[in-house]
Amino acid sequence: MTKIKVSAFRWVPPFAQGLVRDLRVRWALEEAGLAYEERQLGLGEHKSERYRQHQPFGQIPTYEEDGLVLFESGAIVMHIAQRSETLLPLDPSARARATTWMFAALNTVEPPIMFLTQIDQQQSDDESAKYWREGVVGAVKDRLAGLAEWLGGRDYLEDKFTAGDLLMTTVLRILRRGDLVRQIPSLEAYQARCEARPGFQRALAAQMATFAGNSPPQD
Amino acid sequence: MTKIKVSAFRWVPPFAQGLVRDLRVRWALEEAGLAYEERQLGLGEHKSERYRQHQPFGQIPTYEEDGLVLFESGAIVMHIAQRSETLLPLDPSARARATTWMFAALNTVEPPIMFLTQIDQQQSDDESAKYWREGVVGAVKDRLAGLAEWLGGRDYLEDKFTAGDLLMTTVLRILRRGDLVRQIPSLEAYQARCEARPGFQRALAAQMATFAGNSPPQD
Repeated sequence: MTKIKVSAFRWVPPFAQGLVRDLRVRWALEEAGLAYEERQLGLGEHKSERYRQHQPFGQIPTYEEDGLVLFESGAIVMHIAQRSETLLPLDPSARARATTWMFAALNTVEPPIMFLTQIDQQQSDDESAKYWREGVVGAVKDRLAGLAEWLGGRDYLEDKFTAGDLLMTTVLRILRRGDLVRQIPSLEAYQARCEARPGFQRALAAQMATFAGNSPPQD
Repeated sequence: MTKIKVSAFRWVPPFAQGLVRDLRVRWALEEAGLAYEERQLGLGEHKSERYRQHQPFGQIPTYEEDGLVLFESGAIVMHIAQRSETLLPLDPSARARATTWMFAALNTVEPPIMFLTQIDQQQSDDESAKYWREGVVGAVKDRLAGLAEWLGGRDYLEDKFTAGDLLMTTVLRILRRGDLVRQIPSLEAYQARCEARPGFQRALAAQMATFAGNSPPQD
């Protein structure tokens, strides 16, 4: 019997499909070989009083297992990774380095990328939007350049794939509609290399299957 | 002999004093009872080729110990916390909950707060700046409300002080020039409660002492 439950949206619009953060958790569970069930939420339900008692900020995903409730995709991936040598090496130094990359993905690389997507969602054409966008694009480029410089000819951020690569890949994916990653071929190749893992493919297919099964009626 | 080295700025302007992220690491080391040395960097030195070989994004702080180099304040605090029951409880579920709050501080609460400070640093008076600022203030208020709602009458995010509170406190501090925290008395009291800890006071004094000792000449 499956004991792990991960919250996920029943359906989201196409621009968010394949990006919602339960993808990170599904991927980690796949890499760790752990089965899970979905706890599906309708749009808006994540902002309900009831859900917020588990997740104070009304975000997806949460993780439930034997009475333990966790949230924050980074923390959940860390929790799963501690049971999986694929995600976190046993050697303490290698483990600490992998953890460094987990935080780098979420606290250094993701924030300017999220600002950029928020600006772009406004779809504002005025000069001021362009001005702000330019500054944020500069910040994103700076992070991506630092990342590419570090990677150099490496396949992964450290000697082998870890939970750091998992989170970094899901952060780079947020830029899929633009060409900022594509402008740096080594970074594009890195993302493709990580996304080629069977665990990622299964995780993505599972998220997309839920959306496909719950598509709103066309009219 | 001290083996731990933490990078820190020799001096920064007053608006950043008491906020630079080595404060988080100093505080964690104080709570864990571990001695450390500073590796002082002149302004701009953190963007040098040499420093970037350790820290690909040119940020403060880095952490060095017996040949291991870590960066990202969150990852370093995690690394230290794993040796300190004060920062991370031994019980696995309590540990996972504390980790959840560490990521919530850095990936959910900090990003809109940083965006707000970046907008305010531009000191732009035009209408567009006001428009963007309003949206970001809304996002910050939403996070703070979620946090305050969770805290309710509690002293800490969980049963006792953990590394989650440590990081959350340093995130709330970034808002010290505005009144967004002050508008929520329970949150202001929470921040004050955490900052009253002797470990925080020693960490802050240490960062400020370095700045005081390296103040630029007045003319």
